[in-house]
Amino acid sequence: MRFFEDTEIGSRQILGAHHFTREEIIGFAQKFDPQPFHVDDEAARRSLFGALCASGWHTAAMWMRCFVDHQMQAMAQAKAAGQTPATFGPSPGFKNLHWLKPVYAGDTITYATEVKDKQVSKSRPKWGLLTAYNTGTNQHGDLVIDFESVVFLERRSV
Amino acid sequence: MRFFEDTEIGSRQILGAHHFTREEIIGFAQKFDPQPFHVDDEAARRSLFGALCASGWHTAAMWMRCFVDHQMQAMAQAKAAGQTPATFGPSPGFKNLHWLKPVYAGDTITYATEVKDKQVSKSRPKWGLLTAYNTGTNQHGDLVIDFESVVFLERRSV
Repeated sequence: MRFFEDTEIGSRQILGAHHFTREEIIGFAQKFDPQPFHVDDEAARRSLFGALCASGWHTAAMWMRCFVDHQMQAMAQAKAAGQTPATFGPSPGFKNLHWLKPVYAGDTITYATEVKDKQVSKSRPKWGLLTAYNTGTNQHGDLVIDFESVVFLERRSV
Repeated sequence: MRFFEDTEIGSRQILGAHHFTREEIIGFAQKFDPQPFHVDDEAARRSLFGALCASGWHTAAMWMRCFVDHQMQAMAQAKAAGQTPATFGPSPGFKNLHWLKPVYAGDTITYATEVKDKQVSKSRPKWGLLTAYNTGTNQHGDLVIDFESVVFLERRSV
């Protein structure tokens, strides 16, 4: 994981991809979003969506999984190279999340993040605040989700 | 479910409450947010949070579950009373989600929604757009999450 000082505005990283199966979509929705078009094929066919599709919260949570896997891999690589990896702190939240297209059973979503802004934290001088633009794109090249996140990232030199 | 026309700006509804167990927090995090402080008691104790706490996406997804349960109950009550319930359409997204305090294992979060604004959809005249301010509050009265949502709601008279 890069430290705050090493992170460049405009840099973009592919975090990973996830294949959404019918079973997984239904499993998530039964727990967190049991609307008919997320849990029942026939009801989904009759809905605005036309076919079974994932809860928007499922699409968002899977971005987080790809982000965490990506950071953990980067930390392991840094340690293996004898470097001290930077750590992420808590996220205060996100802005402007848009669900732009449905994610249907069988879709594969590729997640990415791009650094938009960086500022030293006023309240926690050991940390910097990164603002990132995050996306999920399906196998047809259509953007299905985007949002801005803010996250604390350790500074190297304090 | 009330139709768009029957929904008053300023009206607030308690959607329900959820008790976050250690097992559930770890189960969600293993799938979607496997950061050490969400999956490992000892690592959580050493973290900024001080104890095992839920992924912010878990806290958010559980708001959705309480919202859906609340709407389905209202629809069933309307049908039982011989009324035609209004239906919700898709949500275009959310704004300004804040994770304000950690949700620890054993916490009970009460979720609510308040109507902030309503506008007839220009592109889909059968529908109105509701803007709502949504919250989760723990058993000590502390706000742990808030965000603004926008959702399509059926109009009565088109």
